Amino acid sequence: MARQSMREEIVEAAAERFHTHGYNAAGVKDITADAGVPKGSFYNHFASKEALALTILERYGASRRLAELADPAVPPVERLRRHFTFLRDEQQEYGYSRGCLLGNFGAEIADHSGTLRDGVEHGFDGWSQALSRAVADAVRDGSADPGLDPDDTALFLLCAWEGAILTARAARSDRPFTVFFAQTFDRLLAAPQR
Amino acid sequence: MARQSMREEIVEAAAERFHTHGYNAAGVKDITADAGVPKGSFYNHFASKEALALTILERYGASRRLAELADPAVPPVERLRRHFTFLRDEQQEYGYSRGCLLGNFGAEIADHSGTLRDGVEHGFDGWSQALSRAVADAVRDGSADPGLDPDDTALFLLCAWEGAILTARAARSDRPFTVFFAQTFDRLLAAPQR
Repeated sequence: MARQSMREEIVEAAAERFHTHGYNAAGVKDITADAGVPKGSFYNHFASKEALALTILERYGASRRLAELADPAVPPVERLRRHFTFLRDEQQEYGYSRGCLLGNFGAEIADHSGTLRDGVEHGFDGWSQALSRAVADAVRDGSADPGLDPDDTALFLLCAWEGAILTARAARSDRPFTVFFAQTFDRLLAAPQR
Repeated sequence: MARQSMREEIVEAAAERFHTHGYNAAGVKDITADAGVPKGSFYNHFASKEALALTILERYGASRRLAELADPAVPPVERLRRHFTFLRDEQQEYGYSRGCLLGNFGAEIADHSGTLRDGVEHGFDGWSQALSRAVADAVRDGSADPGLDPDDTALFLLCAWEGAILTARAARSDRPFTVFFAQTFDRLLAAPQR
């Protein structure tokens, strides 16, 4: 098999290092060493560490399986449940470390890079819109509370999820996710009993 | 007036720099320069940057006005509303930059320092317990939904708040806070209409 391109090796090494160490602690030298490429080759592929980080944010956003939130073959509340189950499984897999790259960059670097702040905002927006469409479908078919505003509910779900990641990570505990599922699926989204 | 102690100057400069730049981007040299003290004096007062950061996390936790959540002179739901209003005003004051120091350290450094991870966990725990007591009071006096579990509700509120800070910061927008207040006070906490 052909060796993958140097650019791709840099992107993969950087994605791992940014996610595990954060933006500031991941130097270009660390990234090129992890990728096994000469440090000098970095700037043949990326104008800056910031430009590379933006590429990685975009890939991360694309890895969130947002298309599944629109799958008409699955009932909409079940789509939402599968989505957050996928995200929780990912956190469990890493022992509640690493967190969400959007949240990590949002917390660490958003104030210092307009480019990365825009990237984080764009990632959150796309995610929120995909959640909103699933909530709207659930409201429409009567499986969720008809009083829900889809856009507001989606943003609130996203926020509650990002906070659950932070607290789960600090406590190395699943409890914030358990609480998230109970508070959202059993209470917030639930259609009133008749 | 006497010049405040060198230790206190270091703590205040570091609190500002950690909050605005993050843990990794705040070097001991930056901190001592901001404090206007010799770099060599740092280790007379703190064993490490990590030890200083833990002191600052503890102070930050103590600045969250948690005692007001137990004030018997104020109705419990109003205590909760004032608490989150205080926190929102703080974010607005800084133009939705800076975020929450607990969340920032949780995202950036929790995986790399057991000491700071414990500090973040402790901060979240104390906050969650104070919220829980106010929720319990509200359940008891009938001003909140009697079906609420105070501990779970408190953790969920905390998570939703931390996520609102992240998304407000990325978008430089108040909307996540507006949504937080509406989803929590008007829906989640609200006693069912009779």
